Order: sequence, then structure tokens, then C-alpha cells
Amino acid sequence: MTRATRGQFITFEGGEGTGKSTQIQRAAAYLRAKNVPVEVVREPGSTPEGEALRNLWNNPSTTASWEPLTEALLLFAARRTLLCRIIWPHLQQGTWVLCDRFYDSTLVYQGVLGGVDIEKLMQLKYLIMEDFEPDLTLLFDMPAQLALRRISKRQDIQHDGVIRYDTMALQLHEKIRQAYLQLADIFSFRARIVKARASADIVEQAVCTLLETHKETL
Amino acid sequence: MTRATRGQFITFEGGEGTGKSTQIQRAAAYLRAKNVPVEVVREPGSTPEGEALRNLWNNPSTTASWEPLTEALLLFAARRTLLCRIIWPHLQQGTWVLCDRFYDSTLVYQGVLGGVDIEKLMQLKYLIMEDFEPDLTLLFDMPAQLALRRISKRQDIQHDGVIRYDTMALQLHEKIRQAYLQLADIFSFRARIVKARASADIVEQAVCTLLETHKETL
Repeated sequence: MTRATRGQFITFEGGEGTGKSTQIQRAAAYLRAKNVPVEVVREPGSTPEGEALRNLWNNPSTTASWEPLTEALLLFAARRTLLCRIIWPHLQQGTWVLCDRFYDSTLVYQGVLGGVDIEKLMQLKYLIMEDFEPDLTLLFDMPAQLALRRISKRQDIQHDGVIRYDTMALQLHEKIRQAYLQLADIFSFRARIVKARASADIVEQAVCTLLETHKETL
Repeated sequence: MTRATRGQFITFEGGEGTGKSTQIQRAAAYLRAKNVPVEVVREPGSTPEGEALRNLWNNPSTTASWEPLTEALLLFAARRTLLCRIIWPHLQQGTWVLCDRFYDSTLVYQGVLGGVDIEKLMQLKYLIMEDFEPDLTLLFDMPAQLALRRISKRQDIQHDGVIRYDTMALQLHEKIRQAYLQLADIFSFRARIVKARASADIVEQAVCTLLETHKETL
């Protein structure tokens, strides 16, 4: 199968609050309007197995607390299921797959933040998918302070109409941002930075331009 | 910490129906009577995280169906949690840990049976525990036909008082048996075969003799 007839695998990466999830839906709509078959998935999740794993984290009643390497193993397990059941079959059939987070997120959160050796994570990556890589990664980037303000609004944690966030949270988001930018540099063959601080419509335009540019290379 | 003051890590391995789980309790009682502090654990499980993962398999309402490599990742995730939270701290404190199944089971079930490359499984093993190995592995071995008869009784699947099992099931159990025997050969530095077809009392005697012999080497 030539690269042009195989579907394209496009990952949407970035810290929380950068607008990935909104933009992935807009990108899907844009591509569908151009008669490109599209499937949107998220990580971890999008399969019964992945969603069951996602619930292990999100269920507040569980007393489970995962250390970073264990978390990484679970994320790669969910990822393996997603690849086998959805991503690879769809790409084979010519469908484009847009994925909300992929293994770059594990490198940032469990690696840079959690302290798991990056080499170990790359070994896990190779174990489950060998040389397979996204055809294009869109990294949504914005100042940490702005991302944090957006999350605060979403989580409704304003007090007296004033959004409070401490220095710790800001440092954490800055660390996440820098880790993603570093990855975009390492994976420059597939990664493109999207300046995400603009309005959703302007960001959408930038995303669509990148998708068009990518299509032209096929 | 010298080998003598550190607790010993002893794994109980073998196919279903070979009596591991009965014998692990008897071995624990034997050691406790000799004033050896003992902790008994099982895989996957024995931590909130491991039990949550075990439930993912055992819950018949879930529509999840795991392919072998994903299963292996989940088992190693549960194993990592068990090592970090229970096995390693107890061994450090001088407690002996008896473990119902360990990574040999993954080599047999996901590797030999499931078709996952053994080298991949050993990479996962190294990723989560490096050179750590059981100090002693007791492999419970019996003819496949006998193990199968015991399982049939346990699962109450006798019909008209006659236990039926087909050639397929027998071949499967024989394959499991041979895979374990091969592992005992590869891991001869730690593995001892327990002839498990005798009565529980006689098997218990054999297990206790092996434990005594092991203690003498410390």
C-alpha cells in the first residue's frame, strides 16, 4: 500500500488547557468536508479495554495509586489495544486517524514529570509498535499561565471570581510545556508547533493549513 | 544486608489443578511454626492496584478482550506494583515472601501459549525488576490428565458423574506442563520440581524438605 492510499495517523499533543480536544473535532469536520474518511480516538480509551483502564485512574472510589513506571505500563497496554483494534485497521483501510494524545504524552508525564527513564519508555514504545510513528504530530503550545487560567475556568475552581494558582502549579505547567517543545525538536520529522493562544477560529485555520500542507506531501 | 538476614522470595509455579495454592498455605504455616516471618501473595493481585487489574479479567460484564502482548503488559504492571509495595519492602525487613505465580507464568501463558516473543517478555521483566529473581521456585508438576481431572472436579463440570474432557484440553495442559518443565531447566539455578500427583500431605513433606534445604544454603 502506498503512503497516499494508506490513511494518515495524526496525533494532537500538548498540556491541558491548550485546546487539543476542541481542535481535533474541528480538524475531523474539516477533513470530512473534503471527503477524507476520519476516525477520532483518544488516549487512554476508545476501546472497551482502554476505557476500562481509564476508569481505573478516574474512579475516585479505588484506593489504587500507581507509581510512574506502572502507570506507563498501563498506558502502553491501552495504547497497544488501540493500535491493534482501531488505529492500524483504519489506516490500512485508508481512513485517517486523529488521536488525542499518543506516546509523546507518556514521555512528558511519566518520563519528564514522573522520573521514569526515557530509554525505558522508548523500549516500551518499540515493544508494542516497533518503528511505527505518527505521520504528523500537532503540538498545541501556549504560555503556561494562559493554559492554567483555562483549566481553572473549566474546573470551576474560581474563588470570589478570582482565579488563584500558586507558583508550584505554574512551574509544573511550564515544565510540561518545555518538555513538549523539546520533543517537537527531537521529533522534528513529524512534529509541528501550533500557536494555541489565539482564538479557536484562528487556531483552527492554522491546523487546517498544516493538514493541507501534509496532504500535499503525500 | 546479607542474604541470610534478607527475607527469601519463593515462587510457586505450575499449571492449574497442580495444588500450588493449597501448598503455599501449608508452606507458610510450616515456616511460621519455625518462627520465620512469612507473607503470602498471589499474582495478579494482593494490592488494590493488582486486584483492580485482576477484576478487569474476571469481570464477565466487561466486553474487554485482551490480546496476549497487552495482557503481558497488564501482568507486568500488576507485578511492578506488587514488587514495589509488598515484595521488596518485606524482603528488606527479613520477611519471607511466598508468591502464587510470578513471571514464569507469563512466559508460559502469554509466551508459549499466547505467542508473544519470549525475548519481549524478558525485556519487560528486565524493565520492571532488572536482575531480581526468585531465590527459589517450586514447580508443581503432574500428568496433564490428572491436573485436568482435578480442575473438572473443582469447576463442577462433571456430567452424569463422568468427567469429560476433550483431546484439545489435554493437549493444552500437556503443552503448559512441558513449557514449565523447560523453564525449570533454563532456570535450574532457582527452580526445583515438586512431584505433585501424590496426596497433599506427601507433597507438603516434599515442599518442606525443599524449604529446609534452601534454608541450609543461606
